[in-house]
Parts: sequence; C-alpha cells; structure tokens
Amino acid sequence: MTEQELLDPLRAPSREGVLRAADKIAALLPPTPLLPLEVQGRTIWCKADMLQPIGAFKIRGAWHRLSDLTAEQRAREVVGVSSGNHAQGVAWAARRLGIAATIVMPSDAPRAKLAATRALGAKVHLYDRASEDRDSIAADLVAKTGATLVHAYGDPWIIEGQGTLGIEATAQMQAQLGRGPDRIVACCGGGGLSAGLALACPDAELYLAEPEGYDDLLRSLAAGSIQSVDDLALPTDCDALQTPRTFAINFAVLQGRASGGAAVTPMEVAQAMRLVFEKLHLVVEPGGAAALAAVLAGKVPVTDATLVTLSGGNVDRETFTRLLELADRAG
Amino acid sequence: MTEQELLDPLRAPSREGVLRAADKIAALLPPTPLLPLEVQGRTIWCKADMLQPIGAFKIRGAWHRLSDLTAEQRAREVVGVSSGNHAQGVAWAARRLGIAATIVMPSDAPRAKLAATRALGAKVHLYDRASEDRDSIAADLVAKTGATLVHAYGDPWIIEGQGTLGIEATAQMQAQLGRGPDRIVACCGGGGLSAGLALACPDAELYLAEPEGYDDLLRSLAAGSIQSVDDLALPTDCDALQTPRTFAINFAVLQGRASGGAAVTPMEVAQAMRLVFEKLHLVVEPGGAAALAAVLAGKVPVTDATLVTLSGGNVDRETFTRLLELADRAG
Repeated sequence: MTEQELLDPLRAPSREGVLRAADKIAALLPPTPLLPLEVQGRTIWCKADMLQPIGAFKIRGAWHRLSDLTAEQRAREVVGVSSGNHAQGVAWAARRLGIAATIVMPSDAPRAKLAATRALGAKVHLYDRASEDRDSIAADLVAKTGATLVHAYGDPWIIEGQGTLGIEATAQMQAQLGRGPDRIVACCGGGGLSAGLALACPDAELYLAEPEGYDDLLRSLAAGSIQSVDDLALPTDCDALQTPRTFAINFAVLQGRASGGAAVTPMEVAQAMRLVFEKLHLVVEPGGAAALAAVLAGKVPVTDATLVTLSGGNVDRETFTRLLELADRAG
Repeated sequence: MTEQELLDPLRAPSREGVLRAADKIAALLPPTPLLPLEVQGRTIWCKADMLQPIGAFKIRGAWHRLSDLTAEQRAREVVGVSSGNHAQGVAWAARRLGIAATIVMPSDAPRAKLAATRALGAKVHLYDRASEDRDSIAADLVAKTGATLVHAYGDPWIIEGQGTLGIEATAQMQAQLGRGPDRIVACCGGGGLSAGLALACPDAELYLAEPEGYDDLLRSLAAGSIQSVDDLALPTDCDALQTPRTFAINFAVLQGRASGGAAVTPMEVAQAMRLVFEKLHLVVEPGGAAALAAVLAGKVPVTDATLVTLSGGNVDRETFTRLLELADRAG
C-alpha cells in the first residue's frame, strides 16, 4: 500500500487490509471469547466483543485507523462522531498513541458512554440529534483545526478494523467446531462492521439486523440505492445502531453481498438481552443484541455454523434493568 | 499415581494433580478471559470464570473428578451436594460422560440454579438448609445405591480441578503483563478453590473473601482448628459461599498458606457487582463477587500483579436487579 493510498479516506477497503488490521489487533488485544449458545435446538456461536477494553468492537477499527496516521496527522487532532462506542474506541486509541481527540456525541447518548469517553481523556462536543447534523459539525471542526476525521463507519480503515472480528471468530470457531462460519448475523448501524465482515469472511452468508425504524441499510439494499431513516427522532434503545444512512463506501461492499436480514422490535431486543444475561452471564447493550434478537425471533434462519455478533455492552443500569424486566413480564 | 490412590478420596491433593487436571481442562474448554480492571489507581486482573459453560469455575473440579472415575464407578451413579454451581458442574460432566447424577440442593437455592441443574439431566434432591444436614443426606444416598460421592470442596480431585483456574490465569497474566500473580484474592466457601489455588500458585500470597456471618474459614485459620458457621439460617445473597464448615483436607492445605482475608458485607458485594456490570460488562453472582468486594472495600491490599477470582454468574434476575439498585442508591 502506498502512502497516498494510506492517506486517502476514499480508498476502497480490502480483505488484505482486514488481515493487516487483524495482525495489529492480535498484537494488542487478547481475542474476545466465542461462546456457544443453544437456540432452537441448534448451537450458535456468539462473539462476545463487549469484553473489549472499551466494551465494544469499535476499538478494532479505531486502533487500525489511528495507528496508521502519519506523524504529522498525529500531531494534530482527531475528530470522531459517535453515540458512544466508536467514541470510546477513538478516545482509547488516541490516548494510547498520544493524540488529542474530540468526539461529536448526541446530547441524549447513554450517560455511561458520555462518562467513559470523557474518562478516556477525549473532549466531547454535544449536539441535538433531532435538529443538528453531526457530520456537518465534524466537518466544521476539521476545517477549523486541520484535524483528521475518523468517521464511525464511512472509512476504509474503520471497515477493515471491524472486519477483524470475523478473522478472530473464524479462527476460534475452527478450533472449537472444526470449521469456520457459513453464516454471519451482524448488528448493523451504518454498516462498518457488516462491510468489514463481508470482506473478512468471503465464504459466509451475511445477514444484517437493524432496529425497527432504523432499517435504512436493509431498505437500501432492497432498493439498490442508499435510503435514509425516515424519522431520526424515533426513540430506540439501540442507540449504537441509530445512524441516519449508510455511506457509499459501505454500500459498495454490501450491495449484492448481504443475503438479507431483519428489523427487530424492542421486545425482541429485550428477550435477547435477557437470554444473554441468563445463559452467557454477559451484559449486552440493546444495539449489541440486535443480531441475536433476529435469530431468536426466527427472522433469520441459522445453520450449524452460524456466527452472531454481540457487539457491545455499554448500557446504563436503568435501561438494562427495565429491558430485562420487560422480557420477564413477557415470559 | 496408582489406581489405589486414584480411587481414594482421602488422598492429599497435589500440585502435580493440578497440572494433570489443567491439561484435561485445556483439552476440553477454551480459557476464560483474564480482564484488567482499574481499581484505586492500580490494574488488577479478574478471572472471568462465569464464562464457563455452566456459568462458574465448578466445571473444573467436577470434570477432573468424573473423568477419573473407573468404568465400574461410572456404571453406578454420582451424588453431589451443592447450592447450584457445583451441581451444574457435576451434572454437566456426568451428562458428557454418560453417568447418572443426583444432586442434593437446598430448597432455597436460586431458581436459575435449580432449573439449570435439572436442564442438564441431573436428579435434584431438595433439603431444608436450616433443619437438615446435606452431608448426611448424601451419605444415605451413597449407602443405598453404591453411588460415588462428589463433594463440593472436600475432595482431592475437586481441589486440584479448581486449582486449574490458577494455572490458566498465570499463563494469561504472563502473556499480558509479563509476569504471573504475586497475590491472589479468592472467593471462599468451603475452601475448594482456595486450596486449589494454593497448590497451583505456590509463589503467590493467598487472601480469602467470605460473606459476613460465613467467615468460618478465616476464623478457622486464625484459631488453628476448624470452626463452624454459627447460624446457618442467616440470610445471604452469597449462596455459593454458604458452607457450614471446611473439611480437614482443605484446612490442611490452607493452614499456614493463606496470608489473610476479609468478610464482606452485602453492600460491598453489591458495589462489586455494579462495577463488574459497568466496567467489564459481565454478570457476576453475589458469591462470585466477594473477592473483588474485599479489594474495593480496601480490606485486602493489592499489588501490581494481583489476581482476583470472579467465580460465577448464576444469579436470578430479581436478585441482580435489586443489588445493582442498592449499589446505585449508595452512589
């Protein structure tokens, strides 16, 4: 890869890039567990990426991106936009590399995510989700300071970095089951993880799970062109998947590659969180439970070698308690 | 080891036995994660053994014990006594080896533990904790059926098997930190895990954490002779540590070996569970949080290479919710 390509955020992400990122991640972070879970008489394989140091898979892409910055770029600032998981990923990587970071976050982001991002030393720039455009705010900051924008999903490094989850899980599934995944069900917001997994695991079918009302990527794939979320003010507990629309770079990877997917309801998400609590003893946040929710609801069929992402665990105690009670009441 | 020694439940457990058990466990189960946690300005290392298939470290000793049974012993039954984690360990190993299992469990055991033990195919024999002696009930069952008793802690295989947690964690800490633990803080009930860790990690100082009112092992070590719990009807959320007294085989290993420890309060346990929820995104049951509770409360000093056991995660949703709310109210 030439330096020009390395510096060009519009370069296409590649499987080669995913493998390079996987080497970098393996040198830095122990693999997160791949845990078997009995569902409808089959064993599915859950990738517990809430056990990353920042509580979400987003550390993967952020580390790949920031560790590839030039000395000149590192001397300036990085700017991220995120409801909280990418925020922590960028803040974590920036602190480790000695880079200043500002994160543009919605004012209604979970308290735990705001606090954790600040605790990692990043500056937080709040915006109103309903009336302001986060990408414009970030662009203004970049124009003012010469900072490098680290987008949450529309960036080739981010896509490649998130794809390392697939490389890691494939090796683990081969060790435990004797074969890699033939199907992957991924929690999907802007399509960073999904596109990364598509590149990482070219032989696996890919299914996407989005929250009801935020299934813009599934609608985009069906329409053959990028569609936006209709109502960005629609409440959802899946803040991590609450993205307005995918980017062309993600759409280009996913078009013709994703086999389908489903929009999941709040109750389906709550039931997935409840099952993960009881059977796996893990805390999964609503957005991180969407893929399992789609499987449990029977909306995505599973095989004997299905990989499901449990992609984050940063949830406020009140929200967690409320959703587990909701699932219990439904029985 | 001769067959006579293998069949003798009163043989002394050994470090050699721990290492043999560790090989058996490594062939069967992926290592559970060793997770760093910032506490009082230091990093401590938490062994997340609630991520075992049965949600607790007890699978280690049960597998070591049952897989060493002779063909003749396997053709008869095994009998265990347990509030639920050892129960699931024995049931899991028995199912995998095709051995019939009966578990003597208190009628007030957590519902999740009763259900999980039955789901693994074991028969459950309920008793009243305040008025009946579980060891007598188990002895009766053994006398009637010729079954093999698999005690929850007073058994050399169980001690050696639980010690594999220390072997596994030492290798992980060496990989991540460059050195093994010089201090271990262990959740302690009857002393199976503690004695196993003492054998597994001869160079580490060992501290024990017991629930208030159930600190019989710490009192035994102070007195130089085995002491019993005063009031077995005293309520505690730490059901996994609610043992009446240690056994001679455990006491012999721990005497002169444990450096100290502490009894922890319900609030200290709740605060440890809350921190694990928020920072590690794990569900730890009250008894599995005792060691971390002792550290957080400042009752056990930590070093730069301290290992803390998070030994189980089998907790009912209502109990989990209640204790996290309790911790939140205390701030």
